[in-house]
Parts: sequence; structure tokens; C-alpha cells
Amino acid sequence: MPIAIAIHGGAGLSHKARLSPDHQEKCEHALRRCVLVGHEILQQGGKSLEAVRAAVVSLEECPLFNAGKGAVLNAQGEIELDASIMDGRDRSAGAVAALRTTRNPILAAHAVLKHSKHILLAGPGADHFATLHQLEQVQPDWFRTEKRWQQYLRVSGTETVALDHDTENVYGTVGAVACDVHGDLAAASSTGGMVNKKHGRLGDTPLIGAGTWADNRTCAVGSTGHGEYFIRTNAAARVSALMELGGLTLAEAAHRVACEEVPELGGAGGIIAVDHTGHIAMPFSTGGMFRAAVHPDGRVDVGVW
Amino acid sequence: MPIAIAIHGGAGLSHKARLSPDHQEKCEHALRRCVLVGHEILQQGGKSLEAVRAAVVSLEECPLFNAGKGAVLNAQGEIELDASIMDGRDRSAGAVAALRTTRNPILAAHAVLKHSKHILLAGPGADHFATLHQLEQVQPDWFRTEKRWQQYLRVSGTETVALDHDTENVYGTVGAVACDVHGDLAAASSTGGMVNKKHGRLGDTPLIGAGTWADNRTCAVGSTGHGEYFIRTNAAARVSALMELGGLTLAEAAHRVACEEVPELGGAGGIIAVDHTGHIAMPFSTGGMFRAAVHPDGRVDVGVW
Repeated sequence: MPIAIAIHGGAGLSHKARLSPDHQEKCEHALRRCVLVGHEILQQGGKSLEAVRAAVVSLEECPLFNAGKGAVLNAQGEIELDASIMDGRDRSAGAVAALRTTRNPILAAHAVLKHSKHILLAGPGADHFATLHQLEQVQPDWFRTEKRWQQYLRVSGTETVALDHDTENVYGTVGAVACDVHGDLAAASSTGGMVNKKHGRLGDTPLIGAGTWADNRTCAVGSTGHGEYFIRTNAAARVSALMELGGLTLAEAAHRVACEEVPELGGAGGIIAVDHTGHIAMPFSTGGMFRAAVHPDGRVDVGVW
Repeated sequence: MPIAIAIHGGAGLSHKARLSPDHQEKCEHALRRCVLVGHEILQQGGKSLEAVRAAVVSLEECPLFNAGKGAVLNAQGEIELDASIMDGRDRSAGAVAALRTTRNPILAAHAVLKHSKHILLAGPGADHFATLHQLEQVQPDWFRTEKRWQQYLRVSGTETVALDHDTENVYGTVGAVACDVHGDLAAASSTGGMVNKKHGRLGDTPLIGAGTWADNRTCAVGSTGHGEYFIRTNAAARVSALMELGGLTLAEAAHRVACEEVPELGGAGGIIAVDHTGHIAMPFSTGGMFRAAVHPDGRVDVGVW
């Protein structure tokens, strides 16, 4: 069976001029490294659930992306991290929201999937659950980079919420989708949310059906963008429904949601998706999307524009 | 144009013997009163969004149901309230989770829909937002009834989470769906969640797509039951997708989700739904569902079994 994996590091970027060649090269290098972490697991016969989890841990650890270390700060100058993961075999899922001390939110989401009767835990109860499951806890300022702090100081007190990097219109999220040697699908997403978001705001990333979806019968999907529009379009599960009920291909379904249905409501962003034959789709309606994929034939794609 | 409204007060109840005739009569009386509150607004030409909001406020104020006053207590013996509302005209939505001091969670969800760039606010930030919008705040023990406290004392320290009323297997939520004179649809849901739930657990009620969905092109849906299964089936938006993409009628789509897809994963519960012609469906896979409806011809339905 073909194996395949795709990851993203956020969408946005209206102008090429706003991304320096040096920064772009650093991001592309990191994306390549992170996608290969997941692909290595698939190559060794590992499960798609493990591959997406490992790829997202790598993205969380990389300070270039808005998840885990390097996440943006909310309107109070604090970190609040969200993540979710879904297993296409039985549609079991785990998600966490507004974490403040758990180093890798995707590991907390995975612990919820494995060990909880619940699917979504939010706030202090979610960090507490992660602690009970021996996940590493850090001080909130461990996540904070100087760049994010300066960014927060610039927008603090304004109503601006859509920015991620500096003056770039990036909706930062990270995510991964994979198809393993058994044809099983999985999806995972993680984020720090929007810069200057109101205390307690949850976007689409921790919401199963909006930010993350996986169903072996159709596809695994991760979305990134202005989360509210992905909630209103039920974006991730919608790609699956368009395939199952509407007869669309993976590419058609992902394009329709990311490039038609989300923009029709006024939103923007991108989607990564994979089906059980290893086909990958990565459409976006923004200027760019940080992304990487390893196709069934071993070809590695890394791109921004 | 025909007007119609349906409400529910939770599903569950495996045995008739566990619901006393006196308690059933009280519940049915309350359901009739609450559905008529919403219907009165529709009759006067009011919007479906206003009708579902008013009906849910009435249900929240009634201590018989697990929402607002009379809500269940979590594993810490505390109240955490969730609600969501969606407008089928443009799929705008608002939701709140883990409120502790806002008297009417559905009014907070509506304030998010009307006044926030965000869709979902959770925790102290959500109560704070409600305060900013002049919504009444109460002490947490205002919500607590003696019955709920005794129930908490019985299950505290155990792993039991699925109970609502005493020994009855009720998944308490309240909700409303309506079609107004303009053919516009809206849906609203509110809950205290599951008895003895872990701190921070969010079910399907605050999740747009799982617990609540409204789209003028298809239907308005509210779900009640074991929330985790309604998240994994993307229940509310799924009813809409089965109509739009699968060609099913409202009754067929609602039945398929509530009585086939949710039970296939091991879950149970019910759905209320209305389409733009005023057709109402109220299927459930549990022994009973507290429900009431006013059909386009003025007929009032109230039932449990």
C-alpha cells in the first residue's frame, strides 16, 4: 500500500516582499525536516496516527511556527495553546484547548484520545490531565520568543487580531495528515491561535469537524486560516462529506472548501488532505501556505507560494 | 410562509419506571410553556434566531432541565455551562463554554454571535465577555439545586460520568430549532454537561457542527446525547450534508444520524431539526427524549417516550 504524508505551517502572506529569502529558506528547511520525521515512521511500517503526532511535535518544537514554542500571545500577553488529533480507523479523537504549561499540546490531545472518555478538555483541567499522564510541563515563558513579545507590544490594546508574523497576514497553525501502509488515515493540528485574540477564544484547531477530521472511508484533513470561517463552513468534515456524499475527488473537495466555500463567507486559508490511496491535496486561498509533502513515489514537495 | 419550532430537554431514560408520573407531568408542562414562548415570537413575525434564544432562556431558567439553573455539577462539584447559537441566513454563530457566573449562557452565545469577531469563547474570558455586554452575573451557587448536590455526592469520586438525573440515564441538554415567517432557520443549544465530568470537559453543545447547526439551504439542528459520539459523527452538520449532498429528506437525514450513525459508534441520543418548509423531525435512539413542537398548522406536540 502507498504511504503519504503532508504537513503545513500556516497560511497567509499576501505579498512575497514580506517574507525575506532568508526566513523563507529557514522555514522550508524546517518543513522538510518535520515532514521527514513523520515519513520515517510510515516507512518503518508505523501508524499514520504516530506519524502525524511526531510531525506535529517537531513543528511545535520549532520556534518559526505558531504552535508550541514560538506561539503568538493573546490580548493579555499570555500563551494559550490548542491542538487536536483524529484516527480515521474509528473516528476516535482527542483535543485540548487553552493549555498554558504543557510543552507539546499534540501529545496532550493524543493522551485524551487514548485515555479519556472525553474528547475535548479546555483550560486548567486540560493541563492537569496532561500532568496526570506524565507529559512535560514548562513555565509559560518557556514558549515565549522575543519576536512574539515584540509583536504583542505592537498590537496590544488594538482590535487587531488577524496577524501572526509581524506585518504579514499569516494565520499560523501547524498540522499533518498521513496515510500509512495499512491504508489507515490520521490528522493532527496545533496552534497558538491569533495574535491578540481575546482571552478564552478557541478557533477551529481544537474542534473536530472544523480544524481536523479523519475517516478511513474518505480522507484525513487539517485546515489553517481564519478559524472562525472554518468553523462556519465545518471545513474539515465538509471535505469528507463532499467526497462521500457528493462524489468529488479529494482534490476537488479540498479545493471547493478552501478556495470557494471559505472565501464565499469572507474568509481565507488553506487545507491539507490525503486519501487512502495516498493522493495529497494542499489548496489555499491566501497568497501562500507553508507546506511540505512526501508522495507515495517518494517525491518530496516543499513550498510556500 | 409556515412557521415552526421544536425544543428538547434532553434524551435518555431507559425505563419508564424511573420517571415518576408526577415528574413527567411537570416536565411536559414546562416543555409546553417553553415552546410556546418561542412560538409566540414567530407568530408575531419575529425572527427564528430570537425565537430559539427565548425558548432556550426559558429552559435555562427551569430547574427541571440540565442547563442554567438546575445544571449538573462536575467532578469538582462545580458548575460549568456551555451554549451555542447559529443563524441559518449566513451561518454566523456564537458559542461559550465553561461559564461559571453568567445566568443565561445562551444570551452569552448570542452576544458572541452579535458582537465578537470570534465564535467560541471559553472559561473566565467568556464570563468576562458576557459581563462587558451587560449580561446578568450570579454567584455559582445560584445555579445549584439541592437535587443536583445530592446527585453529585452520590457519584463524586467514581468514574461515572454519563448520568444526569439520579439513576436515570439522561443526557441532559436543552435546545431549540425554528423556522420563521421569512423561511429563515436558527438553532440554539445549552447545557451543564455530564454529571461528574472532568474539569474542563467540553461536549458537543458548544461546538458548531456537532451540537448545533443552521443553514437556510437545508435545516436547523440541535443534538442531545452522549456528546463525544455527536462530535465523532459531526452530527448536526451531518444532517445538513445528508440533505444537501445525499438527497435525503429532513426526516431521513435526522433519523440516519440519531438512530444509525451515532449508535454504530456506541453512542445514544436524539436530534431535533426543522427545514425551511416547517417540517420537524425529532428522532432519538434512547428510551425517551423530552421534547415539544409547534407545527405549521398550529398543532402542539409534547412528549417524552
